[in-house]
Amino acid sequence: MTAAAPFDFAALIAPGQPPPAVKWTGFPRHNFVGGHNDPEHVPVEALAAAANAVLAREGRTLATYGLQSGPLGYRPLREFLARKLKGHARIACDPDEVLVTSGSLQALDLVNALLLVRGDTVLIEHASYGGALRRLARLGVDAVGVPLDADGLRADALASALEDLARRGIRAKYIYTIPTVQNPTGTVMSEARRAEVIALARRYGVPIFEDECYSDLVWSGTRPPALYAMAGGEGVIHIGSFSKSISPALRIGYIVARWDILSRILALKSDGGTGALEQMVLGEFCPAHFEAHVPKLTEALRAKLDTLMEALAEQFGTAAEFEPPAGGIYLWVKLPDSVDSQRLAQMALAEGIAINPGPEWTMDKAYGGSRLRLCFAHPSHEALREGVAALARVCNREFGVPAQIANVRGG
Amino acid sequence: MTAAAPFDFAALIAPGQPPPAVKWTGFPRHNFVGGHNDPEHVPVEALAAAANAVLAREGRTLATYGLQSGPLGYRPLREFLARKLKGHARIACDPDEVLVTSGSLQALDLVNALLLVRGDTVLIEHASYGGALRRLARLGVDAVGVPLDADGLRADALASALEDLARRGIRAKYIYTIPTVQNPTGTVMSEARRAEVIALARRYGVPIFEDECYSDLVWSGTRPPALYAMAGGEGVIHIGSFSKSISPALRIGYIVARWDILSRILALKSDGGTGALEQMVLGEFCPAHFEAHVPKLTEALRAKLDTLMEALAEQFGTAAEFEPPAGGIYLWVKLPDSVDSQRLAQMALAEGIAINPGPEWTMDKAYGGSRLRLCFAHPSHEALREGVAALARVCNREFGVPAQIANVRGG
Repeated sequence: MTAAAPFDFAALIAPGQPPPAVKWTGFPRHNFVGGHNDPEHVPVEALAAAANAVLAREGRTLATYGLQSGPLGYRPLREFLARKLKGHARIACDPDEVLVTSGSLQALDLVNALLLVRGDTVLIEHASYGGALRRLARLGVDAVGVPLDADGLRADALASALEDLARRGIRAKYIYTIPTVQNPTGTVMSEARRAEVIALARRYGVPIFEDECYSDLVWSGTRPPALYAMAGGEGVIHIGSFSKSISPALRIGYIVARWDILSRILALKSDGGTGALEQMVLGEFCPAHFEAHVPKLTEALRAKLDTLMEALAEQFGTAAEFEPPAGGIYLWVKLPDSVDSQRLAQMALAEGIAINPGPEWTMDKAYGGSRLRLCFAHPSHEALREGVAALARVCNREFGVPAQIANVRGG
Repeated sequence: MTAAAPFDFAALIAPGQPPPAVKWTGFPRHNFVGGHNDPEHVPVEALAAAANAVLAREGRTLATYGLQSGPLGYRPLREFLARKLKGHARIACDPDEVLVTSGSLQALDLVNALLLVRGDTVLIEHASYGGALRRLARLGVDAVGVPLDADGLRADALASALEDLARRGIRAKYIYTIPTVQNPTGTVMSEARRAEVIALARRYGVPIFEDECYSDLVWSGTRPPALYAMAGGEGVIHIGSFSKSISPALRIGYIVARWDILSRILALKSDGGTGALEQMVLGEFCPAHFEAHVPKLTEALRAKLDTLMEALAEQFGTAAEFEPPAGGIYLWVKLPDSVDSQRLAQMALAEGIAINPGPEWTMDKAYGGSRLRLCFAHPSHEALREGVAALARVCNREFGVPAQIANVRGG
């Protein structure tokens, strides 16, 4: 058959599509974005050993959808999660109240698909995960930002926002919070604050959507009970991930919810199950190695954070303000008001430096305008120092900030 | 915090939800449903060796989303797919025209998300994959069934359906076809028929959605060029899978499309990438082993099909009519009109025998009413014989068909 005229799909495409993807051309030279992890701390040998062991023992079960565990996911992994969540976050749940997902991004999409329709309202921390904000915008959902303080989501502001919505006859579909290592501020919500948030959510009949994808990476190794734990599972949907504790490429996250809700979420998961090999390998690796692995990783991340903060102090001086986060892989930085972080991000990207500008991570664009998020897990210590120096040069050139550059050699 | 009253989610749930999932209680004893594969032919040792090799070489790349390959998927796997599709299906595509998905089910969902809105019309083979039919029903899409014959989708019927829609001012969003080992009929669309279908699709400006998830499992080892190949990629979206050739639990499928379409589909894939370990293992396994693995698998499947057909002949006699499929893992069986296959499925399930009743796999409920689909890849030869005997007993008891039962011992 000979070549045909180009087929015109344009008239057939459903409305409301996001812009087409651009071709991927590799990572930027100085990469301060994305939830990448420390390549030196991927437990490669132990994962390979786990793969060998589990394939030798159960490899033939790959012939069935869901292995021998059903659609919730590989049972030994769900059993590990139930134990880990009990020990770590005080969550009492049955393995059948855990659904293994393709990363916590699929978890976000599933919870949104269950609850949201265009025109709905949700409450969200006024600085929050950019991917969550983009999803809400695309779904046509009104996201009401609630300010944060050092203890996390402000209960007084949450009370006002809920009361205001109630006065207008609006029941929000959920309160989305990242209580433990908040993204991007790095705070941990205090236990007292958690209790206040739960009480408010109950009073107004609004569920809590608790995203704990960073909660394993607390420097201190301990954290308050999860909101899910404190609420006894009532009115809370909890999600988490192995992306930050083991590997983001593996795409293994999870949802914890009571069966009446989880059964509805599971009905929406139309992908034939989450990848089995990754589940099997984690199900084999984690019981033996997770507890020892995480402190080694967090120690390395903490050291990289120190390097980043030192480099910022050296290169930006007092122009860069930040609070050391309680854990995680990112630092939330305030530059002088004269800096437009969105323009800075564009200018920096042109020189191979990728940063998250504040407005993409906030509901309150004025608050976010001169802020930026710097992810520090993936670059080496040397790359962190070089990247901050390169960013300082761009920022100085564009905004006169910092006024003096510490390292002018590469300028 | 003390136990709270049960939180009532009911008022918060978005409309149009599917029914909640039911708790999984294990596979039925006689399992003739689901795309499970032959456990004896999962290449376990070679997959483990591939995991070792690729993790030793590239394990640290698990620290980044998308490894070092970007969001389309692991590049060595996409390169393998481009070569395999060229050799096998005559598709000329670049690895950057291949998107690795979480099984071909995610591929189905992505293509539907790109093209369909409630009230749209699509054309579909009048007997087709139940999961595709359920998706269309849930999306509120009008699926117009087009009859099949031994050469696949009937071109005369397709022409009539397209002309009828055109007269009513309707442009269908796509023609969904499973041309190579059609599900459930097991036919392979002839090359001449493919050319007719492409010409009709072009004449009416309707794209072809070609699902080739079973196309590796052709007994003869060869098949006509893909519709995508014959159309030079114009106006065709092609999907496929490793579920049937390697393992359904792995959840690795793919979409082949021109970049102008693939970039839009990629923008809708919001899951942070398909599972990396599975992609890496297949990317390592396939170049070395895929070509030798598939004929061994199809030989085993062909032998199981023979056992199933013999058991049907023995147990049902002339009451069970069927055409031997050209490949695949299922047999499409016609029972006498007096048998209601949906009721048979219910009665059989109560005795631990799972079958797909025809009405769930057809647009034309009258045509499907006394038909059923039997999957034969997973049960052993002995289990196939026992399962057919057990099904015959139920069918005889409920419908008097078959009139005499060959094996009355277990009755």
